[in-house]
Amino acid sequence: MAGIRQLAERLDISIGTVSRALNNKPDVKKETRERVLKMALEMGYRPNQMGRALRRGSTNTIGFVMEIGNPSALGGDNFFMGLLDSVQEVLAKSGFDLVLLPCRSADDPIEFLQRQIARGVADALVISATRRHDPRIELLLKTGTPFLALGRSETKGDYPWIDLDFEGVAGQSVRRLAAMGHNRIAIAMPRRSVNLAHLFLQGYRSAVADLGLDPDPDLVQRVSSSENGGMALANRLMSLDIPPTAVILAHELMASGLYDGLQQGGLRPGHDMSIIGFRQNPQLRYLRPSLACHALSLQALGQAVGRRVLALVDPPESDPPSPLVWEMDYIEGDSVRPLIPVA
Amino acid sequence: MAGIRQLAERLDISIGTVSRALNNKPDVKKETRERVLKMALEMGYRPNQMGRALRRGSTNTIGFVMEIGNPSALGGDNFFMGLLDSVQEVLAKSGFDLVLLPCRSADDPIEFLQRQIARGVADALVISATRRHDPRIELLLKTGTPFLALGRSETKGDYPWIDLDFEGVAGQSVRRLAAMGHNRIAIAMPRRSVNLAHLFLQGYRSAVADLGLDPDPDLVQRVSSSENGGMALANRLMSLDIPPTAVILAHELMASGLYDGLQQGGLRPGHDMSIIGFRQNPQLRYLRPSLACHALSLQALGQAVGRRVLALVDPPESDPPSPLVWEMDYIEGDSVRPLIPVA
Repeated sequence: MAGIRQLAERLDISIGTVSRALNNKPDVKKETRERVLKMALEMGYRPNQMGRALRRGSTNTIGFVMEIGNPSALGGDNFFMGLLDSVQEVLAKSGFDLVLLPCRSADDPIEFLQRQIARGVADALVISATRRHDPRIELLLKTGTPFLALGRSETKGDYPWIDLDFEGVAGQSVRRLAAMGHNRIAIAMPRRSVNLAHLFLQGYRSAVADLGLDPDPDLVQRVSSSENGGMALANRLMSLDIPPTAVILAHELMASGLYDGLQQGGLRPGHDMSIIGFRQNPQLRYLRPSLACHALSLQALGQAVGRRVLALVDPPESDPPSPLVWEMDYIEGDSVRPLIPVA
Repeated sequence: MAGIRQLAERLDISIGTVSRALNNKPDVKKETRERVLKMALEMGYRPNQMGRALRRGSTNTIGFVMEIGNPSALGGDNFFMGLLDSVQEVLAKSGFDLVLLPCRSADDPIEFLQRQIARGVADALVISATRRHDPRIELLLKTGTPFLALGRSETKGDYPWIDLDFEGVAGQSVRRLAAMGHNRIAIAMPRRSVNLAHLFLQGYRSAVADLGLDPDPDLVQRVSSSENGGMALANRLMSLDIPPTAVILAHELMASGLYDGLQQGGLRPGHDMSIIGFRQNPQLRYLRPSLACHALSLQALGQAVGRRVLALVDPPESDPPSPLVWEMDYIEGDSVRPLIPVA
């Protein structure tokens, strides 16, 4: 088994160049990289001792901490898959690779993160599903680990983040429905204590208060971000003494279950209850009536995530990226109708 | 910034124990591990030089190579997300962590894999979406990288694999439909050159030949494993001179687009065309008529994957895992009906 030194000698190029080639650095010519990889393969090169040491802390890897085992992941939420393709594309251009670090929702997220930091798997991390108070952010700041938060948090500190405009989407949805005559407007949020639920609720409550709409707390429902959650939502809304005439979803995957549940209860989605979904999602194109929702380019968002996390490490002297709220555009759908007052 | 030596001195325990604690080895007491992680955090410990070298090739990590950017990933296929939760659960019990290595479908999978091997990111790899001839398997065998193939391949060599019973599902579906009077039975397969398409087609062709059914090559359609693919499939089947009376899907995400496409063309799914989907998927529970499909426990499959990949590295002297074809059980649905002959 050959080490990097033997590999460099055989190729008659410097150890530094071999190391950079193995680590996919952009300052190495394509032919050189291919020659090095080919020889590494022929000589049965395995890294670890020399190779790792040579890199002196640079893994050329970005780690993306991803929660798995939650209802939206299991229910086929394509948000991360759509995003990661563009993140990886941006990283690859700078010679970085992306690794996903799946944290089970059953596991302690702090212990998980400590282990990843201790192992030094990546030069910088992206964390997602931020909590309103997020001890992971405290840990990352304390250990000096470069990171980007995909999601805001109230945890104090100077760190970059990108988040979707949850408040804006909720507030604008309330205003849009109110302008069509709706007064009892419900909202469905994820059960999990993610900060987006808090932001979504804030946007909703502030608009409901501004417009003097019915502030009935029963209109705020917490269900899982999945088809099952939507089914549960339908049943709960229909069981209210006065069901709402419209509902706003914090996660679009609730929509199909909601449609199904309303129909089983004899109500027509769109006709008897207006529905605004969150993100426009190709999985929901089949829904009839078509779901009103909000457009989001996962490609553009993924590129922004990739560029911002790269700015933390390559070059390390670049300005720290500024926080960014990602706005979304309303897409009309037949699931929203003006309220026809009952005579 | 402290190294592992300073950390060990401060804690007054051996460097080896600190290393094993940082690497989450099961032979370290929980209290010791917690003490080490706490001190590592306090002292601002960052690994890389010493820590990496101490491990001598053992990263205590399993890498799962995952194709991203393909239609099924973007279309919200929850297969991998459902699987990984159980894989990670099994690995964690032995002190291993799972990292996902996302390979863009636009990238060269061999160059990607070479880089991962050269970097030594993991002690063993899982590869998925195997090709009928798969040069990745040759590379992994040549470099002596322990790996498990999630999917079969015709590439020669002694390596462990687990695969779903694509042949069996296709063959049994043909027989089931034929027993109900169907003679012109179509099949829809992914466009990509994955081996599962080949296996699915083999199972189909062999049953069609055995039963003397219509062997019309137009009945074999290639579309993407997504809702859009299903829509395209509907249009192509309806445009045939004699449309089939039944169709078998190699990927269940095609079903919603197929239903929609048939309905737009004035045909009723189940009534005018029987449909058998592949895997039972909670995302499709809303479909009416309900989709006949095949049950698969992602949890059980994930556990089998976890156990088999662990057997490659922990303990390394255990018997190599044997190949495994994962059988699936038929689930009845209203999308399948006996053919009523046209008078």
